[in-house]
Amino acid sequence: MIKPRPLSGFPEYLPAQQLTFNRVLSVIRSTYEAHGFTPIETPSAELKDVLTAKGGDDAEIYALTRLNGAPDERETDLALHFDLSVPLARYVAQREGELTFPFLRSQVQKVWRGERPQAGRFREFYQADIDVIGRGSLSLLYDAVLPAVVNDALTRLDIGPFCIRINNRQLLQGYFEGLGLAPEAVPQALRILDRLEKVGLDRVREGLTTEFRLDPAALAPFFDLATGRPDPHALLTELEGWAFGVTFERGVSELKAVLSGLRDQGVPTPNFRMDLSVARGLGYYTGTVYETTLPDFPQLGSICSGGRYENLVGNFHRGAFPGAGMSIGVSRFVPALLEAGVLGVGASTTAQVLVTSLQAEHRGEALRLGAELRAQDVRAEVYLEPHRLGQQLRYADRKGFRLAVMVGEEELQAGRVRVKDLRSGEETLLERTQWSQEVRQRLCPPDAIRSRAGPR
Amino acid sequence: MIKPRPLSGFPEYLPAQQLTFNRVLSVIRSTYEAHGFTPIETPSAELKDVLTAKGGDDAEIYALTRLNGAPDERETDLALHFDLSVPLARYVAQREGELTFPFLRSQVQKVWRGERPQAGRFREFYQADIDVIGRGSLSLLYDAVLPAVVNDALTRLDIGPFCIRINNRQLLQGYFEGLGLAPEAVPQALRILDRLEKVGLDRVREGLTTEFRLDPAALAPFFDLATGRPDPHALLTELEGWAFGVTFERGVSELKAVLSGLRDQGVPTPNFRMDLSVARGLGYYTGTVYETTLPDFPQLGSICSGGRYENLVGNFHRGAFPGAGMSIGVSRFVPALLEAGVLGVGASTTAQVLVTSLQAEHRGEALRLGAELRAQDVRAEVYLEPHRLGQQLRYADRKGFRLAVMVGEEELQAGRVRVKDLRSGEETLLERTQWSQEVRQRLCPPDAIRSRAGPR
Repeated sequence: MIKPRPLSGFPEYLPAQQLTFNRVLSVIRSTYEAHGFTPIETPSAELKDVLTAKGGDDAEIYALTRLNGAPDERETDLALHFDLSVPLARYVAQREGELTFPFLRSQVQKVWRGERPQAGRFREFYQADIDVIGRGSLSLLYDAVLPAVVNDALTRLDIGPFCIRINNRQLLQGYFEGLGLAPEAVPQALRILDRLEKVGLDRVREGLTTEFRLDPAALAPFFDLATGRPDPHALLTELEGWAFGVTFERGVSELKAVLSGLRDQGVPTPNFRMDLSVARGLGYYTGTVYETTLPDFPQLGSICSGGRYENLVGNFHRGAFPGAGMSIGVSRFVPALLEAGVLGVGASTTAQVLVTSLQAEHRGEALRLGAELRAQDVRAEVYLEPHRLGQQLRYADRKGFRLAVMVGEEELQAGRVRVKDLRSGEETLLERTQWSQEVRQRLCPPDAIRSRAGPR
Repeated sequence: MIKPRPLSGFPEYLPAQQLTFNRVLSVIRSTYEAHGFTPIETPSAELKDVLTAKGGDDAEIYALTRLNGAPDERETDLALHFDLSVPLARYVAQREGELTFPFLRSQVQKVWRGERPQAGRFREFYQADIDVIGRGSLSLLYDAVLPAVVNDALTRLDIGPFCIRINNRQLLQGYFEGLGLAPEAVPQALRILDRLEKVGLDRVREGLTTEFRLDPAALAPFFDLATGRPDPHALLTELEGWAFGVTFERGVSELKAVLSGLRDQGVPTPNFRMDLSVARGLGYYTGTVYETTLPDFPQLGSICSGGRYENLVGNFHRGAFPGAGMSIGVSRFVPALLEAGVLGVGASTTAQVLVTSLQAEHRGEALRLGAELRAQDVRAEVYLEPHRLGQQLRYADRKGFRLAVMVGEEELQAGRVRVKDLRSGEETLLERTQWSQEVRQRLCPPDAIRSRAGPR
């Protein structure tokens, strides 16, 4: 006999928590779709050479071998994807003739990283990505669409305050070059800057001044803006007065266009900020960059990051496919928000009504009543074990059903159905002819249906 | 540069087909939930010893190793699950104290099998499982619930005729023992019988008579019933007259109870059949067994199988947890039904409306209009590339948008919005104040909303 044990780094939920997790995924998916980011799904595995084309930390990649195959048949050329960007690049390169550009795609899937698990780090986790890919070129305004989509998703999730922090790599590149750094030294400066949120202003300033012999006084105006959190308009007006050359100015003007696009879409200011400290470690990004933090959960770091990149498919295709994307790290924030009660946990059943029955000869009637409820779009389970009514009702309570339906001799004779509200305890006798419509109305009055349902 | 190439056995869709595939998954999931089968999700990987506890063909299991790790760090103790039953058994054994029984669970996930791919065989594919697990015992009537759920799902999928074929292993066990076979010889007889659909009556009869020296005349009444497709009631009445001992009689009486439960739930007769030829190769099943075929697609074999089993968790737990389950092999039938046009392929966007704009200075207004539509629950994309209107409308046509919204100087001045129906070509000018409500109404009249939306 094998004792089952939890796998470190591979999250798994009990039914009630799973339902909350599924609701989070579903809100994100439907928000992406509401903006026209159409879902694709790529295989969990890619060819190893595809996954490693960009270089990087191969040791974190899970390769697939056949268990107990003949020795020469064990190796395969496959490995599990570690993000959804490489699969997207491969997908676009492989199918570009069949896609329509700009290609707005969403992708919500598991990814795997074989790293040593720590708190908040997973080996299997969900990412929820949106990217827009152009052929040849891509309007800068899409950089304002992505955070608007994320703003919609996080707002609809109703998980409290969040801030999408936006910056521009060209602005940073121009700024540090303007300070006298050689272009190839800038990435190292960005890596230091990128740690501002984590290690604080003093250590970042010290890192920059010692490593590059910069005058702290020269850095002061920058850090005033980076830590002072001025409103976006004030920040950009200030930066427009700075003379740091063409690259810097292009960065500022791009940020300005993004700000204007966010305003046009009605994204409220507290939900986003232009933040000079956001640098994103990856060399990948070439323009706008994003990070998203939950002020009440600073320990989570960024729960949604991304940016603009010059060419998605460089390793797989000769064409130019610029793009921009953001990725919500769902598995990253859900456990913390569940624990804090910010994400609520409710019933551990998807059904609204439990149909009980008192004796074996009533179970046929119970099955009929269940089917009648479902025909009214009411989600219903029929309890079929030969247990006493009390045990059946305890089952209903424990799982969180809204209503219980009771079938007994008395009701059958009278042509009625007894319905118990499991919150109030109130019992009602309904006429057998119209009962399922009445249950439906009670669970969801018509007005609520109207206001909830969007057109399909 | 690496040329991307398709992975044999790992299906991947273009956006329009993906949307159809997603609709199939979504109908199945919501049907499962409507019956109270609550979704869980287990990690893609399990410990190797958990996966191989039951024995079986280990060579088909994909094990995980770390790519390019130090040699002693490459091996892991993990492998990808090859079905959803072993993970369910592990889940129940591990968490039984936290679950409420009977435990009705659904699970729709990918599984992996490292077999040599052939037509219709995949190495990565979706299974959509429902199981009900009892603690200690489980009412036989649940055996009638499972096919009713599958009947609902396949009916709602609207994929043409299907037949859930139902049999009982005890009936078969008793029958062959009654013919004089030793109990331990019966599994081999069932394996021969199970191939009736594939190889035909003659070869099955020949197999049984030669292997077990049975009199062909003695088998005749059985095969008359197995191939004659009598209605379920007639079949069972006939079998009740047969004298094959206690095990056989228990099987017949169980089948009778299942038939009665199916009738109570209103499952129409053409959608199911009591079929003596269904044996299911696996030793796992101990009572009711199911297979589901699509008469128009016999080459697909069974698209949904399952049965009753005596104990789910034998390898992981001392307790008795009897159960019954069915599994829809989604990846198996979707490609054939797409190809035959039985599953339709529509738009390659999730959005209903494309907001176009004629000039750069109108794009802010276009972004505002898009946000206004989404506030009305209308799914809307804003086209932001600096292309001519003709190109924007071609994009809308190719992706399958329903409506295009046009923003130009004239409309802005007049306080109006121009809306073009992309099917009829008809254009309308709407007042800017009420326009988004009107678009919403046009896409989905209130009556349609009412009848589609179920209570939540």
